[in-house]
Amino acid sequence: MSATFSNPSPAQITELRQLLGDRVVTDPAEIDAAAHDRSRYAPEGASAVLVRAGSTADVSCALAWAHEHRVPVAVRGAGTGVSGGAVGYPGGLIISLTGLNQITRIDEVNRLADVQAGVITSVLDRAANEHGLFFPPDPASVEISTVGGNIATNAGGLRCIAHGVTRDAVAALEVVLADGTVINTGARTRKNVVGLDLTSLFVGSEGTLGVITAATVRLKPIPPGTPHTFRANFDDIVAAGEAITAIVGGEAQPEVLELLDAASVRVIEAFHPTGLNVPNAAVLIGQTVGADAAHLADLITQTCAAHGATDLLISQSDSLLEARRLANPALTAQGLRVSCDVGVPVGELANVFRGIAEISERHGRAVSIVAHAGDGNLHPTVEAEDTPEGYAAAELVIDDITRLAISLGGTMSGEHGIGAVKHHELSAQLSDAVLGVQRSIKQTLDPHNILSPGRAI
Amino acid sequence: MSATFSNPSPAQITELRQLLGDRVVTDPAEIDAAAHDRSRYAPEGASAVLVRAGSTADVSCALAWAHEHRVPVAVRGAGTGVSGGAVGYPGGLIISLTGLNQITRIDEVNRLADVQAGVITSVLDRAANEHGLFFPPDPASVEISTVGGNIATNAGGLRCIAHGVTRDAVAALEVVLADGTVINTGARTRKNVVGLDLTSLFVGSEGTLGVITAATVRLKPIPPGTPHTFRANFDDIVAAGEAITAIVGGEAQPEVLELLDAASVRVIEAFHPTGLNVPNAAVLIGQTVGADAAHLADLITQTCAAHGATDLLISQSDSLLEARRLANPALTAQGLRVSCDVGVPVGELANVFRGIAEISERHGRAVSIVAHAGDGNLHPTVEAEDTPEGYAAAELVIDDITRLAISLGGTMSGEHGIGAVKHHELSAQLSDAVLGVQRSIKQTLDPHNILSPGRAI
Repeated sequence: MSATFSNPSPAQITELRQLLGDRVVTDPAEIDAAAHDRSRYAPEGASAVLVRAGSTADVSCALAWAHEHRVPVAVRGAGTGVSGGAVGYPGGLIISLTGLNQITRIDEVNRLADVQAGVITSVLDRAANEHGLFFPPDPASVEISTVGGNIATNAGGLRCIAHGVTRDAVAALEVVLADGTVINTGARTRKNVVGLDLTSLFVGSEGTLGVITAATVRLKPIPPGTPHTFRANFDDIVAAGEAITAIVGGEAQPEVLELLDAASVRVIEAFHPTGLNVPNAAVLIGQTVGADAAHLADLITQTCAAHGATDLLISQSDSLLEARRLANPALTAQGLRVSCDVGVPVGELANVFRGIAEISERHGRAVSIVAHAGDGNLHPTVEAEDTPEGYAAAELVIDDITRLAISLGGTMSGEHGIGAVKHHELSAQLSDAVLGVQRSIKQTLDPHNILSPGRAI
Repeated sequence: MSATFSNPSPAQITELRQLLGDRVVTDPAEIDAAAHDRSRYAPEGASAVLVRAGSTADVSCALAWAHEHRVPVAVRGAGTGVSGGAVGYPGGLIISLTGLNQITRIDEVNRLADVQAGVITSVLDRAANEHGLFFPPDPASVEISTVGGNIATNAGGLRCIAHGVTRDAVAALEVVLADGTVINTGARTRKNVVGLDLTSLFVGSEGTLGVITAATVRLKPIPPGTPHTFRANFDDIVAAGEAITAIVGGEAQPEVLELLDAASVRVIEAFHPTGLNVPNAAVLIGQTVGADAAHLADLITQTCAAHGATDLLISQSDSLLEARRLANPALTAQGLRVSCDVGVPVGELANVFRGIAEISERHGRAVSIVAHAGDGNLHPTVEAEDTPEGYAAAELVIDDITRLAISLGGTMSGEHGIGAVKHHELSAQLSDAVLGVQRSIKQTLDPHNILSPGRAI
């Protein structure tokens, strides 16, 4: 898809300011502060203008303006993405949704929440907690990312093994289309077969089809009993993979099942000691919930032991999961790192661990692994020197890991999305025909290609 | 969306036969036998040709032919739909998928099944059972409808309160597009954020965007323990509605929670006596599963009792659910009936029952109710004389019930779909902007509008 963009003229910026007043920001420093996400991606050239939307009408107005003047648009919540999806375009418009921060309603009876896109995900979760409910999606960024951003990227997280991904929690959406038209999709009912499932189409579309301004999301009741956490150390990561497959295929289901390899544990403990023993190969950390949480944790650690695990621990403390949550900041604090977000069917975990070890050896580069193991989603990280050459060499390792995951029936992105960073790799997973279908849908909804052009699809 | 169709010429039919041999049927009786579904909808004029596809390649070939010659296409599995979605077009092509009847693989470790579209749903379920797994979607037609048809209509059923709708069980699809191109969507992983969610878009699209030829579906482990069924009779249907809301909002969750009003029970017992007592107003019938099924049934019937229910029964026999499954054949055997498929949020059940009683009284027509009560999906049936006037008068009652459901935050179709029958009513629920988006997506994927034109969207 091609499109011709032009930088908005001073007269056009003035027009936007007449429409939206001090919602319109042209100060270069303020724009720059809103132009990045947590990836390294940064195109040359500054964005022209930032709109801090305070309402759906503001978003509609800004998009109609961009549509008319052919201005490329980046949309951002908290800017915590790692794939460059929210990064500003040179000469473009950035729309910030953090001003859309109202929880409109918690519908306790129907277990639904009406929420604006800019609400921080953990704020929504805590509001639901006051009604005995919780919001299932819990990406690692839950304390800093927004519900709208989570929906736009179909965010995953730690509890997906039990509760599915963000898409599974979205009942209905308010979306502003490229030309400023506001639509409502979905329903408040469990069943609804009236036309196409536009809700699911917008979830995970990473800002390419419309701007999600509000959502009706599904809540779940907080399980009774006390959550239990557990830990099991393995001398062999392949055996850990086999244990995970056995756990997921068994009767006792965890709510969380995570893997940290020895290298990752060392980095975490160096960053912020949590008391986690460094395993010989990998540690499984998880959580069970419900009235029989203790029994479930016992059964799961027994399965681990049957696969050779030692140093088993069951606890009612949250400290094991705290260690897991430190993985991202700890790895980030190491400086340059090159990581990815592949997924495989859980039955292939042993094979993917074996394959990553081979790739690591072939390239002569250490690869550490943090994984949402229970749902087969891995974040391997490759050591790299802080030079263009080091970075490029690490990317080659990631390319091999991505191809390995796809060859095992897996995916190049489990939860981080494609954004700008992985866009050139799409054809490794999707056929030309599928890409063609996606781009034709994009073309029909956004004929001037102003919404996140060149990203995601 | 407009399109010009022409009946295929004899030379074009000959061309199709050269391509597909004896898969091509032109015998009028055989075509007519494949031209209807279980609705009353029957347009004037016979279909021109039937293709009994035996492979995805056959479907691709037939669609490429129809695309080239602008022939409207109806797609059918078992033809058990009730909305006219699979009914043949005058001068059109019918593609039957019942020959695509292979279960390619049951992947026990990853709890996935690869299945062709024409497999009967209960056959898939029983194949999964041999691996300790089951296929969650269970529309009332499970013994006679196909997996492909269930996916194309996003079928519901009795267990949706516990397991969601068909869409929730679909991981990946093989789809033939209007021009014959074959694409694969989705993934075998739990998480996958790579481009648009085309899988969800095709699920429930009722044959308008492409022909689903195969699917990878998610299976679940059969719960341990013995399922328990329960029954509770109510003297007041509004109290039953309040009880359902309380059950669904409580800790003890049923796998099935159905409502039959007194009139429906009388019809069932006259059709085939099952020993079900006729309640004064309505009976709740349900099932619990899992190791604590008996305890759950006990808690649920206690909730019913707290809302005034009497004649409580808990059983390990399936006969209560058998009575429920007889509702459709029993009502059908009554001759002319006009029913609908509305849904409301479960918190609105008491209000919808109250409203239906008012509508019934205002029109002076009896309305009986069978409902997948736990998920808020109702099938009210209006008595009608077997005359055009009687039918039209009953339709007015249905129109009022539909408006009532939508006004309560509900839907005009929970599980039967729109098809041809409800197509003219779409704007009661969907805005012009949403209809425009749906039709523009249809236009881009099917530019000659050959796939189920004038239906569903």
